[in-house]
Amino acid sequence: MSASCEIPSFKLFETELTYSFLDIQPTSKGHALVIPKEHGAKLHNLSDESLKDLLPVAKKIVKLLNLTNDGPDGQGYNILQNNGRIAHQEVDHVHFHVIPKLDDKSGLGVGWPAQPTDFEATGNLHKELLARIESEKL
Amino acid sequence: MSASCEIPSFKLFETELTYSFLDIQPTSKGHALVIPKEHGAKLHNLSDESLKDLLPVAKKIVKLLNLTNDGPDGQGYNILQNNGRIAHQEVDHVHFHVIPKLDDKSGLGVGWPAQPTDFEATGNLHKELLARIESEKL
Repeated sequence: MSASCEIPSFKLFETELTYSFLDIQPTSKGHALVIPKEHGAKLHNLSDESLKDLLPVAKKIVKLLNLTNDGPDGQGYNILQNNGRIAHQEVDHVHFHVIPKLDDKSGLGVGWPAQPTDFEATGNLHKELLARIESEKL
Repeated sequence: MSASCEIPSFKLFETELTYSFLDIQPTSKGHALVIPKEHGAKLHNLSDESLKDLLPVAKKIVKLLNLTNDGPDGQGYNILQNNGRIAHQEVDHVHFHVIPKLDDKSGLGVGWPAQPTDFEATGNLHKELLARIESEKL
């Protein structure tokens, strides 16, 4: 979704809480967007009610685009939602991308700088987070 | 999530329908996974009921990880769910990644081969899809 396309011109499905439409600068054929009608710049700004409505609409788009092969091989798709400029967000209204992955050249490119497994570091972080969940009633 | 970690060792939040836990091969500190208890290899295999429960849990993790700055700049995060080997899926059970984007070197790398806006091509595809929605009652 570019800044010049805040009005969905190519609408697909609409529900009480959600719009969806084709991206006008697609990374692959069928690249679509699912957005809440509620305004929120980032995912954590949205109500649970709005959040709950988004993925069932994304599923409808996957079916509409015939991306429903069930094996691991062949065509696939990515569901992506970016928050913040550093994370590739360009428009400050939550939008979920449904991106067909039909070949290696189009669609989402995934860079994955995975760190080696470090049970001690992960365990320490886990303890910190559990303490926060407990103390802040998260 | 690697094939060797199908049991969530570092559990964070759990609901009736959803688990979440820290990834043991994180791309950035706090990289976490949100998965449905229902088995489905890909997003389109899941019930709407399971789908609806996932993003509210992702939001709780974003808050837990203190990623809630509201401006566009500074730290961010990506929500990503991959379907199929070609789209970077390694484990055939739906998992949503919550990936902190704290700096340019860690977290998700986003490759974005956007095509220039082509209203005619997008309009033609849109017509095709609307016809499918109508004829197949999607």
